[in-house]
Amino acid sequence: MTQGGLDWAAQAVAQSRRLRPYVPGKPVAQLLREQGIDHALKLASNENPFGPPPAARAAIVAAAGEVHRYPDGNATELKQALAAKHGVDAAQILLGNGSNEVLELLIRTFAGAGDGVIYSARGFIVYALATTAAGADGRAVAEPDGLRHDLDGMVAEIDDRTKVICIANPNNPTGTLHTLDALQAMLDRVPPHIVVVVDEAYVEFVEEELGESIGRLRHPGLVICRTFSKAYGLAGLRVGYAVADAALIEVVNRFRAPFNLNLIAQAAAVAALTEGDWVRDKVRRVIAERGRMETALGEMGLLQAPCHGNFVLLNHPDAARLVRDMEAQGLILRPLAPYGMAESVRITVGLPEENRRLLEALRQWLAAG
Amino acid sequence: MTQGGLDWAAQAVAQSRRLRPYVPGKPVAQLLREQGIDHALKLASNENPFGPPPAARAAIVAAAGEVHRYPDGNATELKQALAAKHGVDAAQILLGNGSNEVLELLIRTFAGAGDGVIYSARGFIVYALATTAAGADGRAVAEPDGLRHDLDGMVAEIDDRTKVICIANPNNPTGTLHTLDALQAMLDRVPPHIVVVVDEAYVEFVEEELGESIGRLRHPGLVICRTFSKAYGLAGLRVGYAVADAALIEVVNRFRAPFNLNLIAQAAAVAALTEGDWVRDKVRRVIAERGRMETALGEMGLLQAPCHGNFVLLNHPDAARLVRDMEAQGLILRPLAPYGMAESVRITVGLPEENRRLLEALRQWLAAG
Repeated sequence: MTQGGLDWAAQAVAQSRRLRPYVPGKPVAQLLREQGIDHALKLASNENPFGPPPAARAAIVAAAGEVHRYPDGNATELKQALAAKHGVDAAQILLGNGSNEVLELLIRTFAGAGDGVIYSARGFIVYALATTAAGADGRAVAEPDGLRHDLDGMVAEIDDRTKVICIANPNNPTGTLHTLDALQAMLDRVPPHIVVVVDEAYVEFVEEELGESIGRLRHPGLVICRTFSKAYGLAGLRVGYAVADAALIEVVNRFRAPFNLNLIAQAAAVAALTEGDWVRDKVRRVIAERGRMETALGEMGLLQAPCHGNFVLLNHPDAARLVRDMEAQGLILRPLAPYGMAESVRITVGLPEENRRLLEALRQWLAAG
Repeated sequence: MTQGGLDWAAQAVAQSRRLRPYVPGKPVAQLLREQGIDHALKLASNENPFGPPPAARAAIVAAAGEVHRYPDGNATELKQALAAKHGVDAAQILLGNGSNEVLELLIRTFAGAGDGVIYSARGFIVYALATTAAGADGRAVAEPDGLRHDLDGMVAEIDDRTKVICIANPNNPTGTLHTLDALQAMLDRVPPHIVVVVDEAYVEFVEEELGESIGRLRHPGLVICRTFSKAYGLAGLRVGYAVADAALIEVVNRFRAPFNLNLIAQAAAVAALTEGDWVRDKVRRVIAERGRMETALGEMGLLQAPCHGNFVLLNHPDAARLVRDMEAQGLILRPLAPYGMAESVRITVGLPEENRRLLEALRQWLAAG
């Protein structure tokens, strides 16, 4: 394993040069090391602050002795539970190692060299990464107000090469939302052969006005993506899924690795689906806390815009210093510079006492000038 | 989500038609349903019959309450433990959602449309699947005896388009082995820019003669793959890894999803690495049982050839009927027809009592004619 002037490296690097790795929220352990502190609070990754649902935790413990066995490659039980939840057929469900893999599989299956993928400039960054990795051409449509997807602008970008359009609703990291009527009006203008991915990772945190998209939005190539990482509290287990036409799912499944969903992840997700009351209660609390945080940020002059996810958006001309100063106190926030939003910071809604601690730290920071 | 005459389907199906899904070992639950029986013994997937290592099981239970957090995207602790085990730098390690993802990432990174990938015709089937999915051209080199990789034949297939060569050592499903000297003699004839993947998923089950390849085999583009699915008893958690030149790993990492390795999988794998004595003891027992099974199969005239993995190879002109008749008794074996070996059956080495039960069933089957 010697280093050398290798053209394999040169070739592959040329291909990967356009691939900028995803920058995740800073791990707590890393911050503790950097700052020499012994406790930190991570409000950077939009996790569920209440932990995993109790039944999911119990399912993990119960399955711990079975992990020498391969998972069910078809995830039969989980697909059936999801099919029942959404009123669709199990053959309409695609499971992935997190939404990330679901999105990658969809883009890789339908778009290759010479094909086009359309997404919003400040949509979830994985759309652009997966498009580049697939060798396709991404077209990022700017948001007129810097936040909301421009649905008309996305339709206007469609050409003969367009194979996939990705819409996040609500969007991450900007927290914006389009109504189902607005989405349907857009879908009615998209040619039927184009795959439209509506990524609903944060949909549980929308108040009642949105309604259920599955079974209501109509488009032949419509794919609706969901995740267990946010409201369902299973980010560590990587379970995402898509609901679409069975024929479309069958094609994507051919690109999927046979055991992409781990045995513990399947067991925990099945159990989490039995915890509807727990999830609804925690979501309600997050929404209430989000409102309190946005009010407080507004009073401090720091609120960028209201959000429909489990996070809030802060705006300050010196956001980079703000993030650094909070980190020095063990408070990890997410700077949005990688999205071209140098003055914006995304803050996950935490437990009430965590949010109070953060707001107090921000007040003191402003007071200290 | 209406069906329709969609050209997205037509396009993608044309691309995927050459992709035949991997056929995994039949799940126990499925066999029970099919046969109307209440107990089954799966000897089809080369799992560790002794279960997961105790420390891994404890680590899963300990981490169950933390799964609402995202995993460490860099898998820092696991990489450090693997680096220490193999005497390499952590930057030389690539982790994947099973070896399957590691192999896919390697092939996808280094081979695309117009590129060539060379593997043995009866090598692990995932090499061919990943090559097709990447849009590259696979070249399957026949084994002169139907079992052993033809290393000279593989070198002879190299041309200007060749980017990757995959070698399984020991091989699955044929159980054959090449010495490190034979592999090095081959590597010395491979141009330095070609990535050579040596897949050692079953290496722990080789008796002492092989020795440690990491740090001994030499080739600039050498990648050695290992897994926690076999000797380490964590098939359900999907942890595979590769060891290679740090610059090569850095390139592949750009194609990796940020959280491809689940939090529970990381914790269990770190714990499993502390269980060296447990693993060595179980491996020793599997090797001893493999010897007893091969002797018994030889006496029945059913042994195809000795194997170096945790499985044995059975040969019978009516292998398909044999597999069906065993399934009717709740014994799940792996027919090798998908590998073009219609008369061969792969049987995982189980616990001593399980192996005795199987051998007795085979004796009765032969006696019944």
